Amino acid sequence: MEIVNTDILIVGCGPAGLSAAINTTIRNKKTLIYGGDFCSPKLNKAPHISNYLGFWDITGEELRQKYLEHVRSLGISIEKQRIDNIYPAPGNITVVSKGKMISAKALILAIGLQNPRYLPGEESLLGKGVGYCATCDGPLYKGKRVAVIGYTKEGEEEANFLADLAQEITYLPLYEGLGELKDNIKVVKAKPKSILGKEKLQGLETEGETLELDGLFIIRESVPPAQILPGLQIEKNAIIVDRSMATNIEGIFAAGDCTGAPYQLAKAVGEGTVAGLSAASYVDKLSKLK
Amino acid sequence: MEIVNTDILIVGCGPAGLSAAINTTIRNKKTLIYGGDFCSPKLNKAPHISNYLGFWDITGEELRQKYLEHVRSLGISIEKQRIDNIYPAPGNITVVSKGKMISAKALILAIGLQNPRYLPGEESLLGKGVGYCATCDGPLYKGKRVAVIGYTKEGEEEANFLADLAQEITYLPLYEGLGELKDNIKVVKAKPKSILGKEKLQGLETEGETLELDGLFIIRESVPPAQILPGLQIEKNAIIVDRSMATNIEGIFAAGDCTGAPYQLAKAVGEGTVAGLSAASYVDKLSKLK
Repeated sequence: MEIVNTDILIVGCGPAGLSAAINTTIRNKKTLIYGGDFCSPKLNKAPHISNYLGFWDITGEELRQKYLEHVRSLGISIEKQRIDNIYPAPGNITVVSKGKMISAKALILAIGLQNPRYLPGEESLLGKGVGYCATCDGPLYKGKRVAVIGYTKEGEEEANFLADLAQEITYLPLYEGLGELKDNIKVVKAKPKSILGKEKLQGLETEGETLELDGLFIIRESVPPAQILPGLQIEKNAIIVDRSMATNIEGIFAAGDCTGAPYQLAKAVGEGTVAGLSAASYVDKLSKLK
Repeated sequence: MEIVNTDILIVGCGPAGLSAAINTTIRNKKTLIYGGDFCSPKLNKAPHISNYLGFWDITGEELRQKYLEHVRSLGISIEKQRIDNIYPAPGNITVVSKGKMISAKALILAIGLQNPRYLPGEESLLGKGVGYCATCDGPLYKGKRVAVIGYTKEGEEEANFLADLAQEITYLPLYEGLGELKDNIKVVKAKPKSILGKEKLQGLETEGETLELDGLFIIRESVPPAQILPGLQIEKNAIIVDRSMATNIEGIFAAGDCTGAPYQLAKAVGEGTVAGLSAASYVDKLSKLK
């Protein structure tokens, strides 16, 4: 089996992983990124990003290209490689990945939110009327018909935000104990069945009726970062980290959406920077101990 | 006395404050920024920034302009106003500022590091050979003569980083208990007296000798965020915050350098985003309670 040695292995090539990588590389640490097939579908599908300081009136795809160009300018390469197993030990973290074994001094998890079970039509209409963040994309639906599917109470905040903008707003709570909603929000207590539309969102079919829609937001409880690592401390689906982005396992750091809400670009990039610098310092400390 | 009402008052107009402001404004919260005379002298003087994802080969001043343009594009105004006193109470934080009284529902502290006592020549040569972050600007001094003044042990890490790059490297520890330094680092145990040079750094005068230098890095223990707020929890000179950037005082959040190391742009911007969103949610909750 091929064995690859590196100072730092970063799992995930979204904004948090890329931000970590530029920092570990500037700190002269040998860095490998193992990413998925496509670096950040979520960013690629974001129609408009206005709250990453320094860029405004920019599409997710334009920003994604800038991020990748930045990483390339530092000569960092991203490998399409999935992780099968992680065996942590202080100073020597062994990662097994299809036909390869990687030995890393430190590991950064930037794995984002795990994929939820999609509704029929959801994946194909993402960015075409379907979205996950009302406070990000909501302004696009000023004076239009929108709905929010809330798998958790957090959906109420998003619906209340849209209530000031949209002409018609429908809220579908998929949990018990509905909170306070603004007066103009129509509540429909029915399970969503499928999302309608081909090139563009047209509506939502529920158990009881079909809603005609221009915009649909789906607010899910994020799925827990699986059993990637035995013993990794997780609470409310988020990997527990301290202020240095260290997890409870020595040498393993985490950054971005996998550490919890808010699921924002700037948070992911900031945490990636902190995790990258912390991992680099950790590697320095290890080599001093030798 | 004039009374100004606002949802959210942000104190400080560096990267963390500006990032908070764009997020509270997008969330439709009435936002005021009280800044200093100049928004981020630290950013203005940074010769080169390469680790804020999406921008590379950019000067601090260019990035500063982009940040300010982003804020202006959202119609947010920054007032030059210093804070004299803060009187916190849940839902009504009263801030007294030269001839004005501001009543805010939430407050975000983005006050950066408090000014240290400068060495003679330090302020005028900042960005002209004198800097605070070797891992940021160090590569500019490849093959040159540099020194690091370490007020704390953190200086050692910076000196070790430079040891691989610079031709001559001198380290001046201003504390007890010197750690492990790379072999090519010359240690000088003498107090720095003044920094020499007019248009450009020329050297450092110490109690014992004068060093000829191309670059000088000063690593200080940051000064504690003064007695801005009675009861504000501070540890090791950093305001204590939780993951939502809330301080121990209800309605008061903090972001950026004032919450502790690493003193990095991306960390400040990310924390500003989180603090802004948390403050906006807090204001929403208050209005639901009414």
